[in-house]
Amino acid sequence: MEFFFDPSSIAVVGASPERTGNSLLFNATLNQDVAIYPVNPKHAELAGLPCYPSVSDIPHPVEMAILLVPARFTPRILEECAAKGVRGVMIQSAGFAETGDEGRGLQEQCVAIARRAGMRLWGPNCMGLVDVPGHKFFTFMTPSITQVLPPNGTLSLVVQSGMLSAGFLADLATRRGIAVNKACSIGNKCDVDECDVLEYLLADPSTKGVALYLESMPRGRRFMELAEGASKPLVVLKSGRSASGAKAALSHTASLAGNARLTQGLLQAMGVGTARDFHQLVDLGRALSMVPEAPQGKQVAVLTFSGGAGILSCDLLEDKGLSMAELSPETLRDLGQVFPAWMPPGNPVDLWPAMELHGPGPTLDHAVQAVSRDPNVDMVLIHAFLGGTQGEVNLAQYRQILAYQGKSMFIWGLGLDQPVKQFEAQAQAQGVPAFGELARAVDCLAAVCQGRADHLSAPRPEASGNPLPSDLPPIRGVWDEYQSKRLLRAWGLPAVAEEVVSEQDQALAAAEKLGWPVVLKGLMPGEVHKSELGLVRLNLDGPARLEQEFARLSEAMGGQGALLLQAQRKPDYELIVGYVKDAQFGPCVMLGAGGVTAELEPDVAFEMAPLDPPRALAMLERLRLAKRFAGFRGEAPLNRRALAELICRLGDLGASHPAISQVDINPVAVCQGEPLALDANIVWET
Amino acid sequence: MEFFFDPSSIAVVGASPERTGNSLLFNATLNQDVAIYPVNPKHAELAGLPCYPSVSDIPHPVEMAILLVPARFTPRILEECAAKGVRGVMIQSAGFAETGDEGRGLQEQCVAIARRAGMRLWGPNCMGLVDVPGHKFFTFMTPSITQVLPPNGTLSLVVQSGMLSAGFLADLATRRGIAVNKACSIGNKCDVDECDVLEYLLADPSTKGVALYLESMPRGRRFMELAEGASKPLVVLKSGRSASGAKAALSHTASLAGNARLTQGLLQAMGVGTARDFHQLVDLGRALSMVPEAPQGKQVAVLTFSGGAGILSCDLLEDKGLSMAELSPETLRDLGQVFPAWMPPGNPVDLWPAMELHGPGPTLDHAVQAVSRDPNVDMVLIHAFLGGTQGEVNLAQYRQILAYQGKSMFIWGLGLDQPVKQFEAQAQAQGVPAFGELARAVDCLAAVCQGRADHLSAPRPEASGNPLPSDLPPIRGVWDEYQSKRLLRAWGLPAVAEEVVSEQDQALAAAEKLGWPVVLKGLMPGEVHKSELGLVRLNLDGPARLEQEFARLSEAMGGQGALLLQAQRKPDYELIVGYVKDAQFGPCVMLGAGGVTAELEPDVAFEMAPLDPPRALAMLERLRLAKRFAGFRGEAPLNRRALAELICRLGDLGASHPAISQVDINPVAVCQGEPLALDANIVWET
Repeated sequence: MEFFFDPSSIAVVGASPERTGNSLLFNATLNQDVAIYPVNPKHAELAGLPCYPSVSDIPHPVEMAILLVPARFTPRILEECAAKGVRGVMIQSAGFAETGDEGRGLQEQCVAIARRAGMRLWGPNCMGLVDVPGHKFFTFMTPSITQVLPPNGTLSLVVQSGMLSAGFLADLATRRGIAVNKACSIGNKCDVDECDVLEYLLADPSTKGVALYLESMPRGRRFMELAEGASKPLVVLKSGRSASGAKAALSHTASLAGNARLTQGLLQAMGVGTARDFHQLVDLGRALSMVPEAPQGKQVAVLTFSGGAGILSCDLLEDKGLSMAELSPETLRDLGQVFPAWMPPGNPVDLWPAMELHGPGPTLDHAVQAVSRDPNVDMVLIHAFLGGTQGEVNLAQYRQILAYQGKSMFIWGLGLDQPVKQFEAQAQAQGVPAFGELARAVDCLAAVCQGRADHLSAPRPEASGNPLPSDLPPIRGVWDEYQSKRLLRAWGLPAVAEEVVSEQDQALAAAEKLGWPVVLKGLMPGEVHKSELGLVRLNLDGPARLEQEFARLSEAMGGQGALLLQAQRKPDYELIVGYVKDAQFGPCVMLGAGGVTAELEPDVAFEMAPLDPPRALAMLERLRLAKRFAGFRGEAPLNRRALAELICRLGDLGASHPAISQVDINPVAVCQGEPLALDANIVWET
Repeated sequence: MEFFFDPSSIAVVGASPERTGNSLLFNATLNQDVAIYPVNPKHAELAGLPCYPSVSDIPHPVEMAILLVPARFTPRILEECAAKGVRGVMIQSAGFAETGDEGRGLQEQCVAIARRAGMRLWGPNCMGLVDVPGHKFFTFMTPSITQVLPPNGTLSLVVQSGMLSAGFLADLATRRGIAVNKACSIGNKCDVDECDVLEYLLADPSTKGVALYLESMPRGRRFMELAEGASKPLVVLKSGRSASGAKAALSHTASLAGNARLTQGLLQAMGVGTARDFHQLVDLGRALSMVPEAPQGKQVAVLTFSGGAGILSCDLLEDKGLSMAELSPETLRDLGQVFPAWMPPGNPVDLWPAMELHGPGPTLDHAVQAVSRDPNVDMVLIHAFLGGTQGEVNLAQYRQILAYQGKSMFIWGLGLDQPVKQFEAQAQAQGVPAFGELARAVDCLAAVCQGRADHLSAPRPEASGNPLPSDLPPIRGVWDEYQSKRLLRAWGLPAVAEEVVSEQDQALAAAEKLGWPVVLKGLMPGEVHKSELGLVRLNLDGPARLEQEFARLSEAMGGQGALLLQAQRKPDYELIVGYVKDAQFGPCVMLGAGGVTAELEPDVAFEMAPLDPPRALAMLERLRLAKRFAGFRGEAPLNRRALAELICRLGDLGASHPAISQVDINPVAVCQGEPLALDANIVWET
């Protein structure tokens, strides 16, 4: 991908003396180190450079070409580029797959030409590439925007939308003072996609974090693998979650939006931050790129000039699972030196009374020193009033003091526009995350504290290749629960004791063996909704009840299917464990809360399969239900390891048998802390 | 309160030629219509005005006094004010209850002086009052801030924190172009509190909405009554929710933060918006003050220049319960006139292809016209790029066109700082809510769509005065479930059939009458945790089991307490209905989801008692569980009216018997849609 990011020469096809063709040429020439060759048959010279009628006419080697010409001309120009030995072509023009079938055909034609020639295609329908510190502007965005971009950004953006790479950059730069390292607009991504660009950026030394806006993830599996192996923080905003959003996504980038819940769940599993809005995406990405290492703990000291803001900080921090640090006696004594006697300091440290005595600057200096040394403090959140007194926040010094103790700081700055802007520019240069709103600062602080789980660095295991037993029913369609659980047991998953019974005497003997009470179920071929069909008889607590229900159920089934007798277990609660082979993400496992409430408010976690116990254990912790696992209200604590094993084995089973399209173990009962499959269905591809 | 908001004369006690005393005087004199009398024994003249040694020396009547002098001097000055006939005193100095016991004593002394004299006190420890359109600045804030406040705000603020009334106003004005009508900083609110100020603002013609930041609500009941009767939108940010936040709130404003969940629940019940952060408070308040009438429905048309933003809008709108409008064939035809043939319009209306043909301005004009006429469209959300082309959004015209059709518009503007600022100022003047971020625009749009429920306008009923039956046990402490349910039944609440049984034969006879299976419970005096003590025997499905358990339980209880036999009911799901007499909010009822999951993730709604069925029915709808009430997965739909009646009767019982401090009906079983109290405890004040 270097020929896109760092080409020695570029043919600018569609350069012109006006409009976008002019902007593109002007921007490209901003970098003196790249040879630029304008191509336009109508001109002999453009912007003081010789202009060529076609790519073939350029008398020098060409590494990369940017195309900004009507879509219908691109195949011909691509052929020329191929003949010329161009390595990468960035098609910025629109008019391809996003416009319907004809455009899609044209796009496919372009891809075919490029593939044949071993040439990579970026776009089409995109704004190209901006590398601010590298001073490379391979884009037709309004040139004035290139002038306002602050140069010291460490966050790189990958966006699947044109707007986000021009207007949005201008908004970030001029309204919020936010610097971006690289912005990569990948458009229809007919060849180069988010995975290619991400792979490059993960290796790019000047990129410290990557934020991606994506409407589709066709190579979802690859993306997740890259995210899992990433040594830099990633944040994703995935749009098209809603039904109408997905419809719009379809028409916009001609690509299918994936299963929203699975996508979000896997992003979470891979330690990727997720955002709700464009600005939040950048907020989170920027904070993570500035503070890539999670702090030691989640204890925050809040230094504030406003008691009210201090109180609200407590609320917001605790909402996010962080805590207010309990300041040590030494720190309190130290702070006490600048506080009036009538107001002993606490956390939040309301500095106002001390500021009235000593002035804002010296007070804040003292307070930062004091909390920096406190072993109970992991992070410092400073509220600063920037009303022309921004010099009083000695950013560089505070950063140094805190960094020495392995602590980071976040700043919420409030005040007049100009001083705040100046302050934010300083903060950016110092690598200190500064925010205009308290809640934003707290959200980002929480994201930084989240950190990256150790288990993500461990290699993902291979699927263990347990063969299928020989006496299986035909491998296609839906298996009934008896057959399904037989296979699960063969793979080491714990499932309830049960027996198929054809005679009443056999049923009675089986019940004595299984222990009372028992459950009698009617298995009808192809039916999975047994309860709804009245095929489940519960609470059979003795021979009389069993005989009665055996007779009734046999009659109801009219000689079809089979009867299954199970030990009846009374679970403390129920879980759902599932497996799905997803078109985008490949073999995946799911863990969810069971029961009706969970159906109303789904509580689920996902992982890719195969997986190892640490990854499965992390799934448990991602459920809201996790609070119950420690043993809520006298219940036995969950045997987490057993559940993790169950999930891993299910993942192995699925991943090593590609003909399995899905498995539902619903419910997995938790009885005295032990997970046990009560019902299950395996669905094979037909 | 008029003497605070619209005084004819003010004594400025503590006026001085420097620092805050100077700022205060300077700000006060900005309004030419108010007679200002500086008071300071050290000066004969200040700011060109005669200065008096004391309030008593002012040779004119004085309506209001502002005190900015060391706290210890205030009682003496208050006595002078009282003698002078001053009607209201605003103490802006700090050093009172917020500083500890001594300050609290001083504050109480001040209140006593004022009460005796029939004088009202505002503050202390506050920034006073700003009325931007009225050009009144009764505050010591930095005078430069008064110069930057835009004059056309319709939202008034009430804040219990100094910071929020100076730095925050400056931030809103200069960074976000947000205009405020009045800002009332009420500090320690020793006399004048949020209720007094709210009452004034609800009657104030230039205030169209009120946003309040509160750390405590000591007159919670009064506040909720005002909110319920309010004809203007209200939004509240209540801080001190978390344990540490409440601790900080205590030391900050010397006031107790209320029960967070009850407070939030009642605010919701009264139709008050709630915010998470200061800026969100203003966002929501401003949008509601600009668009006080909820639209006809929740169908939104999105006009955008960016496909990506259109897709994300769908996600965000649907997350908030709004829908993308299905545009009518006429509208699609109309829009089609400006769209290229290859790109038929839809909703979101991605205007880019049309803009390329006709330019941004004419395209947007055409689109606004088209959607304005569409009966399927209730609201319009416009994404505008403001890169120096802000003139292309014809705000005034769009507003008029849409208002004619009874529709409002919201705008998300992205672009360079200066054009965006200019645009926001125009939008503000036109009363159009404009936002710099998409998610903010959607959050506010959803708040506006929420509207105000009709039942809030109906008067709240009186408690019906059903007397207590004569054969009650002593009215104190905790009643057991049998006594509790007897009283509930006497008040018309449905409770499970049951009988106290002392002999085995009596138990058998009772069971036959109640129907099998039955439950046997041991009632021990003062014990409410029967299950934990093993005093509940379930599933007694015949005489044998009952005899056995009767004997065992009698033995376990060793002759103490009594045995209670109940019909055993198998509920579809369980609810909790409760009553509490709260110190701040008075008699209140609660409805919540039952079961362990609900304990882990509480799902509750609150109301004040007494209440009527419409208010109770609205409580049902506020539960997340509400989705289940329609009859989820084949369950019978809930008899909502019966549950609402149950809640109302419980409210009546509590509200008409002040000796009841709380009632827990847990669970209320829902069996075939009918609510039924299975267990209950009434707690009387001791």
